Amino acid sequence: MSVPATFDRLCVVLVKARNPLNVGAAARAMSNFGFARLRVVNPYPVAFREARSAVGASQVLAAAQECSTIAEAVADCALVVGTTAVGHRTLQHPLRRLEQGARLIRRQLASAKVALLFGSEKFGLSNEAFSHCHWLLHVPTCEGNISMNLGQAVAVCLYELARDAHARRKAPKQTAKQIPATAVEVERMTTILRDAMVASGYLRRKPTSDAEERLRRLVRRMDLPAGDAAAWLGILRQILWKLHNPEKEAH
Amino acid sequence: MSVPATFDRLCVVLVKARNPLNVGAAARAMSNFGFARLRVVNPYPVAFREARSAVGASQVLAAAQECSTIAEAVADCALVVGTTAVGHRTLQHPLRRLEQGARLIRRQLASAKVALLFGSEKFGLSNEAFSHCHWLLHVPTCEGNISMNLGQAVAVCLYELARDAHARRKAPKQTAKQIPATAVEVERMTTILRDAMVASGYLRRKPTSDAEERLRRLVRRMDLPAGDAAAWLGILRQILWKLHNPEKEAH
Repeated sequence: MSVPATFDRLCVVLVKARNPLNVGAAARAMSNFGFARLRVVNPYPVAFREARSAVGASQVLAAAQECSTIAEAVADCALVVGTTAVGHRTLQHPLRRLEQGARLIRRQLASAKVALLFGSEKFGLSNEAFSHCHWLLHVPTCEGNISMNLGQAVAVCLYELARDAHARRKAPKQTAKQIPATAVEVERMTTILRDAMVASGYLRRKPTSDAEERLRRLVRRMDLPAGDAAAWLGILRQILWKLHNPEKEAH
Repeated sequence: MSVPATFDRLCVVLVKARNPLNVGAAARAMSNFGFARLRVVNPYPVAFREARSAVGASQVLAAAQECSTIAEAVADCALVVGTTAVGHRTLQHPLRRLEQGARLIRRQLASAKVALLFGSEKFGLSNEAFSHCHWLLHVPTCEGNISMNLGQAVAVCLYELARDAHARRKAPKQTAKQIPATAVEVERMTTILRDAMVASGYLRRKPTSDAEERLRRLVRRMDLPAGDAAAWLGILRQILWKLHNPEKEAH
């Protein structure tokens, strides 16, 4: 199997991975299926150092980027997908089975970067991590044992993404309206909307993290094209300016 | 996912596995995807003992059968399939990609037992082991790194076998978040956004019909779920109220 150029747009993001063997296994699966971009957010430092120095540690690991926040790790991505075992937690996001989700990810990779997030071995992704995601992905497993090993979950997801790389139909041409906004633009929009909500009295000056997360999800569900993100930013900036300067005329 | 009865007919056979972590990982993947029959042929005794006594070792491991020959491990199976990374070895067997091979295995499982063989971490299956097989299976990987971790290879193969077990494409359950907003709600959102834009000075008091249309399209591209439309209406109403009543405190 040769590697399609679009695979370079997928960023595998490991959040708080604890076990060096799992970090290594994730990198190995990436190399098996042709994905090169690994980003690690707050890994247990020892784990990451050990994984990197392990015998046979791959180029993938050597080139891995270390980030201190999820926002940083997904900044240049237009689609952010979180993985979850679906437990008893009530999810605030659309949840897609791997097969269907992989189709959507492949489509997006035709034109933009996509981040695929995996949580820690013990706890998976937190609600705060989920709030950066557009939707969630789960590998269909048995009710008796839904929780997969991290390295195996990465392997299965990447297999499914790579599986049909050749058989798939060519992605339809994207118009300017369809080029998705990057995470940075979406986060900018989130921030300014929050400021306007605070200035209007809708939110208190120090919103709870729960309110912040709800807002972040609300904006991500807009699935903003880049052009629309710019339009919204312009509108909200003006509204915010007027809220702060009620007596002034707009220029 | 509930487990189809036919899954009990699949025997996962690990031949000369060396690493207890891999044996454990294979068992975990089996449990994730609903397969219960594990057979180990000539495992490194220490590895197998360690895997079995590991914390959280599964029922799968507890029930695993130890065999001293491949012949013994596959004796009751009507189809024997070996896995291989396809290297430089010349293969004497038909070789099938995982996806196609999984289809054949599923068909066979409808009426008979099937053995799926995995070789040791270092050497894979020997030619002697292959000689017990009807055909060989490989996971499509990149030319640069074809060799998969044993636990990950097992996970990917079992995922593919389990993936379509139900063959039904149930539409995903719609959460409240996914019920789309009606046109009335979308238009209400459009109107209040326009009013806020006018109040902020972004739009003139009598917007051109062109500006109105652009705005309408912008809001429609949000593809608002009903719940989100309500959230946006609340936010924008408050912002609009504050724009009109800059001196008043929010209630």
